[in-house]
Amino acid sequence: MINIVETKERITADNEKAAEETKKSLKEKNIFFVNVMASPGAGKTSFLCAILPELKKHYRIGVMEADVDSKVDAETIQQLGVKVIQLHSGGLCHMDADMTARGLESLGLDDLDVIFLENIGNLVCPAEFDTGATLNLMILSVPEGDDKPLKYPLMFQVSDYVLVNKIDTKPIFDFDDAAFEANVKKQNPNAKIYYLSAKTKEGIDPFLEVLINEIESYRERQ
Amino acid sequence: MINIVETKERITADNEKAAEETKKSLKEKNIFFVNVMASPGAGKTSFLCAILPELKKHYRIGVMEADVDSKVDAETIQQLGVKVIQLHSGGLCHMDADMTARGLESLGLDDLDVIFLENIGNLVCPAEFDTGATLNLMILSVPEGDDKPLKYPLMFQVSDYVLVNKIDTKPIFDFDDAAFEANVKKQNPNAKIYYLSAKTKEGIDPFLEVLINEIESYRERQ
Repeated sequence: MINIVETKERITADNEKAAEETKKSLKEKNIFFVNVMASPGAGKTSFLCAILPELKKHYRIGVMEADVDSKVDAETIQQLGVKVIQLHSGGLCHMDADMTARGLESLGLDDLDVIFLENIGNLVCPAEFDTGATLNLMILSVPEGDDKPLKYPLMFQVSDYVLVNKIDTKPIFDFDDAAFEANVKKQNPNAKIYYLSAKTKEGIDPFLEVLINEIESYRERQ
Repeated sequence: MINIVETKERITADNEKAAEETKKSLKEKNIFFVNVMASPGAGKTSFLCAILPELKKHYRIGVMEADVDSKVDAETIQQLGVKVIQLHSGGLCHMDADMTARGLESLGLDDLDVIFLENIGNLVCPAEFDTGATLNLMILSVPEGDDKPLKYPLMFQVSDYVLVNKIDTKPIFDFDDAAFEANVKKQNPNAKIYYLSAKTKEGIDPFLEVLINEIESYRERQ
């Protein structure tokens, strides 16, 4: 039992070190890196499809699509005319800092300003591994329910932004904004919560403004 | 790298052994054990709430609610008047055979005919660990999309039953039954697919009939 804990601690320490190296190397190149996490089907790819057409007017964009298998998301993103690669995790349930660093190397960093990692669809394991991202962003879709912060606490603790997607489906699902916000704040008082629909585009522009501010503020920092 | 693989193989072999012991001990007591897997918010608890009121007329039911944290699901199930315990995984993303065996011991087996495990909400890791269940049942909800078998192949490979939940939301989501079935069959030609809504109860009765047949056929086997 003690051995398992020690192994996990060593893995975590090694991961932190690799994540710090990624952060440092990205800052040197002034590249902003967003780690997008969510359940399967919460709308990670649709969210990227909703923001990238506008964002690519301002920045050179790269996307890493991580999946256990398939390349359907990379094919979708490619149609937006941004640089994209597909990463296969080989059965693994998350991206760690090493796997991410290898992904960034394959993507190539010389001609990019902003990079998105679409992590494996999973609310548990990706939260445990710092990828070296500048920003952790998680998407929770209305159909999943407002109680998820109680069940997947770490994901909400590590996320800078919590986006509630599929708000166009609110008329048919019981989703209580106030209850959700209280549940999120219990885990992470600093999480910034935005409501949007990647499908109807409602709420996309206000979030884009906030994201561009984050990117600009990062790029101005020495 | 080789060390990691060896460790994983040993863990898998140990898990298989523990799962076989659970299967043997449950068969001796003639207890049917269903492992319910799905993404966060796909409707595992709602599904149990939809089938248990009828099922408990025929069998003595026990439910193990596994979550990283919280006890909201166990409280919901308790209101149905069946035996229930909450298992906390301590941050872990799945239930393995050992954790399940300890759960079964806590639940107590002497006065039960059918046991359900509501696994951690996750389409990746729970698929890797045989819990010792008689039946693996996964729920995919319409809002998650028809492409999920391509991205989470192992979950569909290990599931005897694939239930498509929230079919009442089909009018507002793009979900192609034929495409979904083709995607499932690619991973698992033997998977039995049923469509239902735990909310409206559409499709619940036909599935209950099938489940009761499975239980009866198991109980008659020597």
